[in-house]
Order: sequence, then structure tokens, then C-alpha cells
Amino acid sequence: MKFVSFNLDGRASWGAVTERGLVDAGAQIGGQYPDLKSFIAAGMPVDDLQNLEPSCLKLGDVDLAPVIPKPGKIVLAAINYWEAGERTDQKPPYPVLFLRLPSSQIGHGQPLIQPRFSQKLDFEGELAVIIGEGGRHISSDDAMDHVAGYSIYNDASVRDWQKHSHQFTAGKNFSGTGAFGPWMVQANDLGDPKQGVGLVTRVNGVEKQRTVTSRMIFDIPYLISYISIFAPLEAGDVIVTGTCTGFGITRQPQEFLAPGDVVEVEIEGIGCLSNRVEAER
Amino acid sequence: MKFVSFNLDGRASWGAVTERGLVDAGAQIGGQYPDLKSFIAAGMPVDDLQNLEPSCLKLGDVDLAPVIPKPGKIVLAAINYWEAGERTDQKPPYPVLFLRLPSSQIGHGQPLIQPRFSQKLDFEGELAVIIGEGGRHISSDDAMDHVAGYSIYNDASVRDWQKHSHQFTAGKNFSGTGAFGPWMVQANDLGDPKQGVGLVTRVNGVEKQRTVTSRMIFDIPYLISYISIFAPLEAGDVIVTGTCTGFGITRQPQEFLAPGDVVEVEIEGIGCLSNRVEAER
Repeated sequence: MKFVSFNLDGRASWGAVTERGLVDAGAQIGGQYPDLKSFIAAGMPVDDLQNLEPSCLKLGDVDLAPVIPKPGKIVLAAINYWEAGERTDQKPPYPVLFLRLPSSQIGHGQPLIQPRFSQKLDFEGELAVIIGEGGRHISSDDAMDHVAGYSIYNDASVRDWQKHSHQFTAGKNFSGTGAFGPWMVQANDLGDPKQGVGLVTRVNGVEKQRTVTSRMIFDIPYLISYISIFAPLEAGDVIVTGTCTGFGITRQPQEFLAPGDVVEVEIEGIGCLSNRVEAER
Repeated sequence: MKFVSFNLDGRASWGAVTERGLVDAGAQIGGQYPDLKSFIAAGMPVDDLQNLEPSCLKLGDVDLAPVIPKPGKIVLAAINYWEAGERTDQKPPYPVLFLRLPSSQIGHGQPLIQPRFSQKLDFEGELAVIIGEGGRHISSDDAMDHVAGYSIYNDASVRDWQKHSHQFTAGKNFSGTGAFGPWMVQANDLGDPKQGVGLVTRVNGVEKQRTVTSRMIFDIPYLISYISIFAPLEAGDVIVTGTCTGFGITRQPQEFLAPGDVVEVEIEGIGCLSNRVEAER
């Protein structure tokens, strides 16, 4: 089953994409589960959705929001894929992690914003992990039991601001740059990313990044375990698992996004996240 | 007037510390203003508090929480004070910023947690700015109009985890390390920190850090303006303005905190934030 967060006529809602159509769960059981995060926190009781009415709505009728619009935390790994020919015995000791503010997020189909004061907006296609059951000091062995589902993230980065100092904060937190969608697939529906699912990023239809998730340097169990040592993980928390090579600033010559460009991140078994770039007004 | 967030008998509340005693605003007008953040977002209508009953409570009767327990964002500046003899013509081009998760925060009097897997817990005494009216692209000239008040922060840092990679995230986000309190003083009651208020950090009564806020490298108007270029500021957001020299890892020999140690950060015109270190259980 696929889960979405969306806005319709000024109302924030969430629901399930089923063969019967889009089920507007927020309209029917919003008292019990006001958002997707609260449904995940309740252990994703999908049986509660079986008796709900599908709406006449199609996905295209609603404005998709970030899958989890206001996660308690969004922890991202920097570059986290072995490239062809890299020596895997030279693994760095720890992952490079940074944080995103929920206010920087957008949903599938929403405009990706090129900031007023930068011409260096760049893309990074990544697999997003959505935490189900929370916990602290989670072992790697238990970590996959804490995954509610998966989605797609475009960790779009403002490269000049990212390099204003040695900390990435500014360049990774511009409003309208964290694209997250279109939906969450349940963990069991994707299977274990360690087995390898394909990830491709395209700009205006031209392939820019291609990898498989089995090539992650720090795998999902490790990331969950490591993060849970310093911060308690909670339902709806998002771990964005890092990108592979091929993003704009690493290309020869460098390529940055301009208004009108369309960025697609496609992950096998999940779907395709697409956003068109607009200039900040 | 001083404002606090606190817990009492399992109830999260907020209130004002007045000459008449502690006013439990949460108990009396919590329907309208469920927390201090919502009161700030409403423009801090202090007249609404004049008619409330002071409780028989004293501050010592309640468990003080972080002044803003769940800010929309906590943005911190790294070291941000000129030291004696430094050449102020060698100002770095931009501030070094990082983020803290609300889950890492504690209130005045709550235990500062030494993590299970580190012996390198360190202190950093800092002035905290609490945003009132939000905004984007705020000019430096207008920035001080967006300050609701001030408080004190001990940005306690787990140095070995901070250096696991080039990003500070892990070492700055351990649970129980971001001490924030005891209260917020209204902006007008402190005056302009640019004029210089004294800041002292003590460990077990021994002075470790001493500076005045007029020695900040990037001043408060600059920090507000700079942050607002990438992220919309909202009521209750917290900007922690950076520390001066004298924290443990810079000392000869290095000093780290151990269970039983008491860290006090005192800022002239605000008060004294005090926390005792406990080992993580």
C-alpha cells in the first residue's frame, strides 16, 4: 500500500493510494489519526483503512505534500555510495550526517525553488527511510524492524551557501529545496534495499545519476543504529540515505539547475519524484 | 517580565515569574495559548496576564523545561567572540551555523547527560535569542524588532562524536545536552546586547569562560538577517549566538565534564542557568 500526505481546498490531509482510488483517511479518521505520522506511530493499522470509502479523487486532483510534512527530525547522510573502482577497504570511520529543517521540504510536483541570491542550485537523488517504531540504542540487527517504509528524496543543495563555512547548514536548508515524495511504500512492499534497488536521477529527461542501493557505504541498519545512539528515533522521523556521484557540481563542466528545469528521481519499486524549478519570487 | 516553561504533576505548562509569584498561565489561559511559543506568536499580549491569579507555587516547586521546549528550529553559531588581541580586520566571511534537535534540550536544573559511549562532554555558555515576529529576508536594520526575548544556553558538546566527521551533527545532538533556561527575559528588559552584557561560565564554581556580548564577531542583527535568507523565521525559533574561548577541549590540559559536576552559565540581566552532570543510564 502507498501512503500520501496532501492538501485539498486548504485542508491538510493524508491517505492511501489503493486500487479503489485515493482514500482520504484524514477526512474520515482524522480525529483518531490527524496525519500520516500519527498513523505510523499507531503501528500502521492498515485494517482501519479497509472499511473507508475511496473518494472520487485521483492523485492529480490534490496537491501532494512532503510524505511526512513535519518530521521530528530529518537526518541526511552526505555522499554514501561506492563508485565503480573505489577501494571498499578504505571505508571512512563514520558517516557524514547533517540535518534539514521541515520548513525546507516540498512535495512531489511542487516547485523546487532557486533562491534569489544563488545560481548554484543542485540536485541529489536519494532513498528516504521513514521510521516506524521509535527507539534509542537500536542495534543494527534490530534496525530494519524500525522501518515503516520508503520514499524518494531530492536533497537539493545551494552549493555556494553550502560552502559559506565548513558546516553545510545554510546550503542544505533553503525553503523549497527538500523534495520528498511522491508517497511512502510500506517496508515489506519494497523488500530489503541491501539487496539492491535501482536509483536514477534525470534532469529534463537526461540521466545524471545511476546507482543501486546495495552500493551504500553505510547501510540502513548502520545509519539507524548510529543515529539512535545520540538521538531517540521517533515514528515519522526521516533518514535520507545519501547520494551517489553525478550531481551537478561534480560534473565537467559544472551544471546547475535553472528555472524551468525538471528534476526526476526514480527508485525501482517506489516510483518517480518530479519537481520543476522556479525562481524565488 | 520573565517567562518560563515547566512541568508540574505530569502537566506541561508555562507562565510568568512576577513579584506576585509564579503565574501558571497554562492552567488559566492554556486554551488560548497552550504554550509559551503560542503566546509569543500572538505578540506577547502581557496585559492578558495581569488579571490572572498568581499561584502559591514558587519556581522551586516546578520542573523547569527548556524555555521553548519544541522550537521550530534551533540554529547555533560556532565560536563567535573576538578574543583579546585578535585582529578584527580578519573577520571570517560568514558565520559557522549548525542545528540542534529539540529532543536534545533540557531545562534549568535538569540533569546534563554524559553519554554512555563518551568521556568527552564539554560545556559552552551562550546567549540565546528567541524570535518573536517571524519573517523571511529580514534586514539587519529591522532584525531587532523580531526578537521576543533572551535566555541562556549551555550548548554542551560531545567532542569525540563531534569529530566523527567534518559535520558537527552527532556531537551536538545527544539527548540531554542542550540546556536552555532558566527563563526568557523580554527583549526590552535586557536592552541591546550590542552594548555588552557580561557572560560567565563556571564549573563547580570555578570560572572557565568570561566575555561580553559586545565582542560577538557576527552580531545578533547579522545572524537573524543571514538565517532569514535561507529559512523563514517563526515565533519561538531559537538562535544560539556562539561561545567564547575557555571551554574544556581548548584548555591545557583538556578538561571534560564528569558526573556530579555542576555547570553554571550566568548572563548579566538574565540570570544563571545551572545543571548537574549525570551519567546516562
